[in-house]
Amino acid sequence: MGQLTTFTQVKDGSIVTPKGFSAGGVHCGLKKTDRHDLGAILCEVPAVAAAVYTTNVFQAAPLKVTRESLRSGTLQAVIVNSGNANACTGQQGEADAYDMRAAAARHLGVAEQDVAVASTGVIGELLKMDRVNAGIESLPPRLSSANSGAEDFSQAILTTDLVKKEACVSVLVNGKEVTIGGAAKGSGMIHPNMATMLAFMTTDAAIDQEALQQLMRQATDVTFNMITVDGDTSTNDMLIAMASGLAGNEVLTPAHPDWEPFAEGFTYVCRSLAQAIARDGEGATKLVEVSVTGAVSDLSARAIAKTVIGSSLVKSAVFGADANWGRIIAAVGRAGEPVNPETVDIRLGDISVLEQSRPVAFDEDEALAYLKGDTVRIVVDLHGGAGQATAWGCDLTYDYVRINAAYRT
Amino acid sequence: MGQLTTFTQVKDGSIVTPKGFSAGGVHCGLKKTDRHDLGAILCEVPAVAAAVYTTNVFQAAPLKVTRESLRSGTLQAVIVNSGNANACTGQQGEADAYDMRAAAARHLGVAEQDVAVASTGVIGELLKMDRVNAGIESLPPRLSSANSGAEDFSQAILTTDLVKKEACVSVLVNGKEVTIGGAAKGSGMIHPNMATMLAFMTTDAAIDQEALQQLMRQATDVTFNMITVDGDTSTNDMLIAMASGLAGNEVLTPAHPDWEPFAEGFTYVCRSLAQAIARDGEGATKLVEVSVTGAVSDLSARAIAKTVIGSSLVKSAVFGADANWGRIIAAVGRAGEPVNPETVDIRLGDISVLEQSRPVAFDEDEALAYLKGDTVRIVVDLHGGAGQATAWGCDLTYDYVRINAAYRT
Repeated sequence: MGQLTTFTQVKDGSIVTPKGFSAGGVHCGLKKTDRHDLGAILCEVPAVAAAVYTTNVFQAAPLKVTRESLRSGTLQAVIVNSGNANACTGQQGEADAYDMRAAAARHLGVAEQDVAVASTGVIGELLKMDRVNAGIESLPPRLSSANSGAEDFSQAILTTDLVKKEACVSVLVNGKEVTIGGAAKGSGMIHPNMATMLAFMTTDAAIDQEALQQLMRQATDVTFNMITVDGDTSTNDMLIAMASGLAGNEVLTPAHPDWEPFAEGFTYVCRSLAQAIARDGEGATKLVEVSVTGAVSDLSARAIAKTVIGSSLVKSAVFGADANWGRIIAAVGRAGEPVNPETVDIRLGDISVLEQSRPVAFDEDEALAYLKGDTVRIVVDLHGGAGQATAWGCDLTYDYVRINAAYRT
Repeated sequence: MGQLTTFTQVKDGSIVTPKGFSAGGVHCGLKKTDRHDLGAILCEVPAVAAAVYTTNVFQAAPLKVTRESLRSGTLQAVIVNSGNANACTGQQGEADAYDMRAAAARHLGVAEQDVAVASTGVIGELLKMDRVNAGIESLPPRLSSANSGAEDFSQAILTTDLVKKEACVSVLVNGKEVTIGGAAKGSGMIHPNMATMLAFMTTDAAIDQEALQQLMRQATDVTFNMITVDGDTSTNDMLIAMASGLAGNEVLTPAHPDWEPFAEGFTYVCRSLAQAIARDGEGATKLVEVSVTGAVSDLSARAIAKTVIGSSLVKSAVFGADANWGRIIAAVGRAGEPVNPETVDIRLGDISVLEQSRPVAFDEDEALAYLKGDTVRIVVDLHGGAGQATAWGCDLTYDYVRINAAYRT
C-alpha cells in the first residue's frame, strides 16, 4: 500500500516493471573490484523521454552526447558506465562517448540518436574503450525484463554507494494501471542543483514530452535538488526518464483528469530515490531530514533547509548524537534568507529544544536516544510566513573522510 | 624583516606592543579544563576604534552591547570570555553581557561606554555570571604591558584552537614608528562573511575613525573573509581594532602620504591572523591556499576561491595527499561564476595538472610529496579576465569529525 491514496507502491518493483523495459549489467573492468560497471536500459519502442542535467560549468562528455540524442524527445536505450566519469577529457572524451553510444546502438539494435550515455567515477581520465566495447558486446543482446536485469543495472551504476537505490509505484490512469520505476546512484559529490547525480526512471505511461519534461523539473526541485551529501555538485549529474506508452492510457498532460495521481507517483519515486541517496551518502550512518516551515516563501525555506542539511557542524553533531541545536540555529542564521531572530522554534523529532528563539529544557537522555536512531528529523519553524521545504542529507563521519582521502588511489 | 618594504614584522610583537596597551587573562571556570577563559585588553587613553561583526541573523548578546559601546567611535577596554558564546540566551543573556561590561569597566577604571564585550563557545547556555564576575575581579587591576599579558589574553580567547594567533608589524608614519598588533581565535564554525571569528587589533597610530573603519572593511574582505574551516558562519564573529594615537604621528586618513604602508601593514596583520586561523582549523593538519587568477572580476575570483577552499571533497583529498584535481575543477564549475570550461589551468604548487582544461601528465610521486607538506597551494588560472583572489582553509580530517561529534558533551 502507498503512503498516499493516489498511487500504490509496487513491492519489488523496479525500472523493468513498466511495460516495454528491460535492463542488464556486467563487469567490464573499469572498476578495480569485480563489481558490475557497465549497464543498459532498453525499451521495446522509442520512448518519450526527458532529462535534467548538472548545472556545473564543466559538463562531462556523455552529457553532450545525451543532450544531442534527446533533441528528438525520444530515447530507446541508455548505456551507463561507472568507475570513470569521462569528464574533462577533451575531444578524445567526446569521441569516446559517441563511440560508446554507437556500440550500444549496434548491439541493442536501436538508432544511435535514441541512445543516452551516462558515466560516473573519477574525473579526468580517458575511458578504457576496449573494455567498454567488450563490455557492451558481453551484454545479452536481449536484456532482461525480469527483476534480475534491473538488479544487474542498479549494481552497475554504483561507485562508493553501499546499496542500490530503486523505487516503483503504480497509478490508475483512465482506469489503466500505469507504473513508474526508478534507479539511482549517489554517494559523494552530491549537492544537486537543477539536476542530480545519475538517476533513471521508466514508465509505461503514454505522456506528452513537454509535460514529462516539466513534471521532471518540478519533481526534481523538491526531491533530488533537496539532498546534499557534501555540498559538491558533480560534473556528471543527470536524471533521465523514459515513457514507453505501452500502458494504453490516453496521453497524459497536466489537463488530464488523472494527471495529479501520476505526478504524485512520479514525485514519490523521485523522493524515494533522493532519500535513498542521502541515507547512503559516503560514510553515512543515518538519514537526516530537515523540515523548515514558516518561511517567507517556499524558495526561502528551501535555501534554509539546504543550509542546515549542508552544515558540517550539524552533520558532525548528528553523527555524535549531540543535541547541539546552537549549530542548527547558526546555520539558519547564515542562510542569507529573511529570518526573525526572535521567533524560531526547533525540534529534534518530537523533542522541542528551542521555542521563540529561547532554549527549552529537554531530557538529554531522550534526545541522545533519538539522535542514535537511523533517521533524524530536524524541524525548524520560523513563524514568518507560509513557506515550507524539506531537505535530506546524512551525518559527517570518520568514514566520509577515509573514503575521500583516498578515493583516486 | 618584513616581506614587503613598506612595513616591518615585529618579532615577538603582540597586541601590547603598540604604545598605551596592556592585556591579561585568567581562568574563571567557564571552560572545563584549567585553561584561561577570561581576558581583557586595556588602553591608557580612549582609543579610536572600529569593528566588523558577523552577518549571521542570530547575533549574540555581547555583539549588541559592543555595537552600543562603539557608537561613540572610541573604546578603552575589551572584555572577552571563552567557553560560552552567550548566544540565543534572550533577555537574560543581554543583561549578562551588560553586567559583564559594567564589571569590567569598574575593575579597570574606565567608562562603561568605552568597553567592548566578546564571547565565544557553546551557543544557548546562560553565562555563569558568578564565575565571570569573580574572574574579572581576579584580573590584575593594572593589566600587563609586557608580552606575558598578551600571552595570557591570547590563551583566554581560545576554544578548540591548538595554538594562539598573534601578529605585529611596524610602519613609519611621518618618520614616527607606528606599530600594529593583533590576536585572534578561530578553529570551528569558521566561514566569515563581512566579519570574522574573534580578532583584536591594537595600534598606537593616530588615525581618523572613519578611515580606520573603512580600512578594516577593506582588509577584512581580502583576509578574514577569505578563510573557511567548515563553511559555518558563527553567531559571535567580531573584529575590533583600537588605535591609541600615542605614536605621535599626524592623524592618518587615506590622504596621508604614509597611508599606503600603514594600510599594507594593517592588512598584513589581518592576513597573518586569518592564515593562522585556517592552519589551526579544527582537526587540520595543513594550511591550504587557493589562488584564482584570470576571473572576470576580483569578486568573481573570490567566490570561486571560496568554493574550492570550502569543498569537503577537495579538503579530504588534500588530507589524503591525493592529487585529485577533478574535485578542484568540479568546485570551480559549481561556484556559479562565469568560467570558460575550455581554458582552465590548475597547478598544485609548481606542479601543473591541468592546462586549457586538459589533463597534464605529472609525476605522482612528486605530487604526493608536495601534498604531504604542511602548506598546500592550489593555483587556478581561468584565462578569462584580470580578476584575482586568494582564499585560505585547511584539510578535512578524522579529527574534525571527532572534535565536532562530541563538542558539547
